[in-house]
Amino acid sequence: MARYKKYQKDLSYTYTAGIFSTIEVLEQRPTVVKEVLLRTKTKDSAGVGKILELAARNKIKISYDDAQITKLSGAENHQTLAIFDKYEIPLDQAANHVVLVNPTDMGNLGTIIRTMAGFDVLDLAIIKPGVDHFDPKVIRASMGAIFQMRVASFNSFTEYKEQFHRNYYPLMTSGRDIGILLPLRSPYSLVFGPEGAGLSEDFKNFGIALRLPQSGRIDSLNLAIAVGITLYAAREA
Amino acid sequence: MARYKKYQKDLSYTYTAGIFSTIEVLEQRPTVVKEVLLRTKTKDSAGVGKILELAARNKIKISYDDAQITKLSGAENHQTLAIFDKYEIPLDQAANHVVLVNPTDMGNLGTIIRTMAGFDVLDLAIIKPGVDHFDPKVIRASMGAIFQMRVASFNSFTEYKEQFHRNYYPLMTSGRDIGILLPLRSPYSLVFGPEGAGLSEDFKNFGIALRLPQSGRIDSLNLAIAVGITLYAAREA
Repeated sequence: MARYKKYQKDLSYTYTAGIFSTIEVLEQRPTVVKEVLLRTKTKDSAGVGKILELAARNKIKISYDDAQITKLSGAENHQTLAIFDKYEIPLDQAANHVVLVNPTDMGNLGTIIRTMAGFDVLDLAIIKPGVDHFDPKVIRASMGAIFQMRVASFNSFTEYKEQFHRNYYPLMTSGRDIGILLPLRSPYSLVFGPEGAGLSEDFKNFGIALRLPQSGRIDSLNLAIAVGITLYAAREA
Repeated sequence: MARYKKYQKDLSYTYTAGIFSTIEVLEQRPTVVKEVLLRTKTKDSAGVGKILELAARNKIKISYDDAQITKLSGAENHQTLAIFDKYEIPLDQAANHVVLVNPTDMGNLGTIIRTMAGFDVLDLAIIKPGVDHFDPKVIRASMGAIFQMRVASFNSFTEYKEQFHRNYYPLMTSGRDIGILLPLRSPYSLVFGPEGAGLSEDFKNFGIALRLPQSGRIDSLNLAIAVGITLYAAREA
């Protein structure tokens, strides 16, 4: 009998899928891992060897359980996954943050997390409602980079803003050219609206709205692209 | 009986899916459109009104055909789509290009096309094997921006390079920091490798390899993110 349920947003646990993100959670957050699952016919490989070594070192249970893996990973034919308890890490008051207001796309969220890690911006606030950052699809799209991050969810932008006093830069197509406002003043929060709609005009009350250069040929850049370009532009070279 | 087959790479026609990209093909490339399909119960909206007007102005056949739309759009419940003949437009010798070597992800390709349009870089070369830029999933991810672009496929990088004499900048994690090489010398081609593997080392023989800033926390940036950041960095402000 399967001991774990397929991912649901309100379960207290979730899981990685595939070798890459399984190694990442074992390296970065071993204390939250409940169990590592492998298929009975998993081929030996450098990746699998590393998973076995990391699990042993951290005294984490290893089970060979095809039925359980198939149940959890569905159509994707993963060889391994790690079950772990969802966890919360408070955001760093002194660090720069990315704030995503009501993100809706799991692939975009994972890509944003991977990109943030690539620019050493490790604090991400998600304003609800929004996709769950511990959805296995997000973990996968992040390539496991999520385990190096501090990610926290907030019930509203107001709730977030009351906890973090700093410079706010909402990204808006009606904002001012980011080029003339560089360098940004740390610590800051870069705030992005949902895919499609973007931020409402009242976000201009919270800080200096920034605009990325963009031709009239498109309505807006893809959200993950916009975050990537902003992190590049804002980085301290 | 359905008159059109579900998308296959080697058919001479393909189709948009949804109101947004259907308006775009009618506005940008009306001469290639064979027919516009609408559901019998499509609700009136500004978008549908515009589609009907554009089709009428360009003397394009309009059919109300639920079975055909369902067959083509599958699980996605689109209200409308336009069937069009695949077309080729030669790349501009004088313009800057993006070259994608063996791209494998349809969502990434569509996002890259949308981003290129956002930076007024309108020439895209795809080195085969790679995903078909006229796959409906690519068209959709491009938000219809593909119809403003010149896109051409080549059997090999050599075939492309023989036709376009210009400055080549392959993007490689082992390249030189893009910041010290700006501004790039036009006309140029920005060359990107496939998701995951990236370009092989021999691409350094073809030009000056550029590297995007990136922490050691990740192996590489997502391909679409890398293209977006490069276009932003290379733009003439």
